[in-house]
Amino acid sequence: MPSPPDFSAAELAERFGLQLHGNGAERVVGVGTLAGAEPGQLAFLANPRYRSQLGQTRASVVVMRADDAVDHSGTALLASDPYTAFAKLAALFAQLPQREPGIHPSADIHPSTTIAADAHVGAFCSIGARSRIEAGAVIGPGCVIGEDCVVGAGSELIARVTLVTRVRLGARCLLHPGAVLGADGFGLAMDGGHWIKVPQLGGVVLGNDCEIGANTTIDRGAIEDTVLGDDVRLDNQIQVGHNARIGSHTAMAGCSAVAGSARIGNYCLIGGGVGVLGHLEICDRVVITAMSLVTSSIREPGEYSSGTPLMDNRSWRRNAARFKQLDRIARRLPAIRDE
Amino acid sequence: MPSPPDFSAAELAERFGLQLHGNGAERVVGVGTLAGAEPGQLAFLANPRYRSQLGQTRASVVVMRADDAVDHSGTALLASDPYTAFAKLAALFAQLPQREPGIHPSADIHPSTTIAADAHVGAFCSIGARSRIEAGAVIGPGCVIGEDCVVGAGSELIARVTLVTRVRLGARCLLHPGAVLGADGFGLAMDGGHWIKVPQLGGVVLGNDCEIGANTTIDRGAIEDTVLGDDVRLDNQIQVGHNARIGSHTAMAGCSAVAGSARIGNYCLIGGGVGVLGHLEICDRVVITAMSLVTSSIREPGEYSSGTPLMDNRSWRRNAARFKQLDRIARRLPAIRDE
Amino acid sequence: MPSPPDFSAAELAERFGLQLHGNGAERVVGVGTLAGAEPGQLAFLANPRYRSQLGQTRASVVVMRADDAVDHSGTALLASDPYTAFAKLAALFAQLPQREPGIHPSADIHPSTTIAADAHVGAFCSIGARSRIEAGAVIGPGCVIGEDCVVGAGSELIARVTLVTRVRLGARCLLHPGAVLGADGFGLAMDGGHWIKVPQLGGVVLGNDCEIGANTTIDRGAIEDTVLGDDVRLDNQIQVGHNARIGSHTAMAGCSAVAGSARIGNYCLIGGGVGVLGHLEICDRVVITAMSLVTSSIREPGEYSSGTPLMDNRSWRRNAARFKQLDRIARRLPAIRDE
Repeated sequence: MPSPPDFSAAELAERFGLQLHGNGAERVVGVGTLAGAEPGQLAFLANPRYRSQLGQTRASVVVMRADDAVDHSGTALLASDPYTAFAKLAALFAQLPQREPGIHPSADIHPSTTIAADAHVGAFCSIGARSRIEAGAVIGPGCVIGEDCVVGAGSELIARVTLVTRVRLGARCLLHPGAVLGADGFGLAMDGGHWIKVPQLGGVVLGNDCEIGANTTIDRGAIEDTVLGDDVRLDNQIQVGHNARIGSHTAMAGCSAVAGSARIGNYCLIGGGVGVLGHLEICDRVVITAMSLVTSSIREPGEYSSGTPLMDNRSWRRNAARFKQLDRIARRLPAIRDE
Repeated sequence: MPSPPDFSAAELAERFGLQLHGNGAERVVGVGTLAGAEPGQLAFLANPRYRSQLGQTRASVVVMRADDAVDHSGTALLASDPYTAFAKLAALFAQLPQREPGIHPSADIHPSTTIAADAHVGAFCSIGARSRIEAGAVIGPGCVIGEDCVVGAGSELIARVTLVTRVRLGARCLLHPGAVLGADGFGLAMDGGHWIKVPQLGGVVLGNDCEIGANTTIDRGAIEDTVLGDDVRLDNQIQVGHNARIGSHTAMAGCSAVAGSARIGNYCLIGGGVGVLGHLEICDRVVITAMSLVTSSIREPGEYSSGTPLMDNRSWRRNAARFKQLDRIARRLPAIRDE
Repeated sequence: MPSPPDFSAAELAERFGLQLHGNGAERVVGVGTLAGAEPGQLAFLANPRYRSQLGQTRASVVVMRADDAVDHSGTALLASDPYTAFAKLAALFAQLPQREPGIHPSADIHPSTTIAADAHVGAFCSIGARSRIEAGAVIGPGCVIGEDCVVGAGSELIARVTLVTRVRLGARCLLHPGAVLGADGFGLAMDGGHWIKVPQLGGVVLGNDCEIGANTTIDRGAIEDTVLGDDVRLDNQIQVGHNARIGSHTAMAGCSAVAGSARIGNYCLIGGGVGVLGHLEICDRVVITAMSLVTSSIREPGEYSSGTPLMDNRSWRRNAARFKQLDRIARRLPAIRDE
């Protein structure tokens, strides 16, 4: 273990180009929340709704906007975006386990693989024919990597990740446990009353700096590839169907799903539990709120939603029953044209 | 294998403090459903809707309420709550595989771990630095346990469970295959057009007697911990975001999701596919029906719902189209105030 | 690796009983999309919406309907169902990895198992007492198979699949990574303020030719079995509760969920993210559109839906607020009777 981190407020201000307010000699050895921090910890104030906690905080140093610091008696680091500044500061206090270069003796590696000398391959990993593990990549314990895969430089598979076949990851990707990339897309054709499988001959391609959550699944393409751009961030338990395309810098929250051949643009924010039907296009900078279903293409940036509000069950039953009559209700009224 | 279970109705009545109706000498060697049981099997009648099956059942003994037994000619065990009584009785007939104390020779264990002498660690398990496996715990095959984790006394990880880091389980917890606890929470900050990761420095803490379903994911906290109380029961494929808190005795059905920093009270029942947005509070004894979305805090116990009823697709299309006009429809009418 | 596939259009026409249009000497060495194919590749035209791409395609041979070929100058294979024909043709170009018969030396196999001489068991697999792996079955790396399981002839577990206990697969089933079959059903009874577990004494039975997607979970039954018929096709991240029954040839899209004891008929198509409540029956040939919730039994074949359309968030908020008033709105109008 490296020696535990210990910085002065002044050192932190200088290292991250932040303005110092108060006592630069304050020591910071860890991080905490405004409400829960102890002396020696760094906290942050980004959401005004927590401003009231500032008076009581025991944090030695707080990251905040300049205007929040005006009448703050304690020590502060001033940032235009305190949350982003905190994210960078907090990284100093994340003590990540060392993954030494080398291949664990238990690993089962096909002779035709290429593994960089400084890559790490953990216990009980399987790596198949013609796959390549690039410089500094980390393959945690229990991962299965099939044929013709690439794990780009500095990418990490935490543990128990599966890359089935023809999965190519860019640099610095981070895949969490249970993620399955490159499984067969769900391609079926009916033939005389039973299903036959449509061979899934494509692969999966991720750009650089993508993050894939725990138990998320990304199927490989039927003919061409399933493609994620750069800096795509997928939370846990997301399903991405074959031949889907997700643009760079798009983030999707947990349990959302993208059906086959859908295309999502850049800088989109997809809420938790959202569904996107197949073969649709969503343009750049679209926000979809939680548990909405996207049933047609979206061509204008903006925020979109579907669903109904939560109610006590008795009221909900009454109103939901009327939903079944809604068209007849409307027809009782003078014609209403769609705007 | 132990000798197969074989009890008389009288023995079962005495062991579980139930009143015997009929022939105490009836033998019971297994369990069945009212409709499907064979002689020698124990069945139960809890739901009145199955009462009609009582006449035809071939079960040797049936657990039921006293009033259901009045004109029942067969042998019965009388319980105020037949389902709970059956749950206890059936446990006698569950022949669970033995997991002998000891560490499988293939397991990869960091020298700094502490493993109780009577714990079981199965094949192809990895256990990281400073983790502790307490008395009688069972770690099934293919589990990965990272750094600084605790598996409490008598807890069992069935197989292929991952505890990423700083995951602390109480006593008698049961984790099903594919569960991932302690993966990074989904914390991102935008910095000059690309995402940077907010370090996830907290852990996951479970109380005693929790059950976590197959492929369920519980992320670790950003600064403080993600916390489940005692006797929390999570079904399969549930997602729990970082810093969420779930109260004791709360049960959640499959595919539900709790976003970051949400707090759910004690004795709540969360239906399948339900979504709970981040930073909300749900008080004790709240029931949420299946596939509802909770978008604001709930302060009163009771049952809550959202969504619309299922209809044939043609009717649904007509009504759903009118939903887009609902505000204009309402404005045609004399003002309707929220009650 | 076998020699790469190379066929003439005439050979393909003959092998699959398709009518040849144009030059039977055209060589086909792979497949592509109409838009993306290169010379030497086979493409298909099934969806009329892509008909315009036919003029520009560089594919050497295209599978299409006879009427689409009338004024097509290139080479074509004529099929009444081009998609199904393509599925069969494309299989010729799928170069699947060889899985040699035999048991990997690292595998941990209970002495009481039965493993066919020509079956394949990969690295880091665990197989428990009394389980049977039949002729030609393939168990990929990192699978865990518990007690009393059967993997039928020619079935394949790609990698990291778990069969917990009493799981019996028919012939030619295909299970994708992360799938968990036979975990405890979610059976709980309240006893004096805390939950007790209802023992899950049943198993899981799959017919022949079933496909189970990545990270899909199918719980074992409480007393009797959870049962899937023949040719059932489940996409990724589907949850099937204990004692559910799914009829033959039914296909379910990703992230759908079937609660305990529900029965789904034959030839049903269940959309992505659909929920089916427990103890319901759905008859044969029912289609449920994406993210609908089935709250009562369905006795008539046809297409069913629930939910509301996607709107810009501002309009949605206005309309959703009115949903809370819907019953009062309706009561302002002359009585509307359900049709």
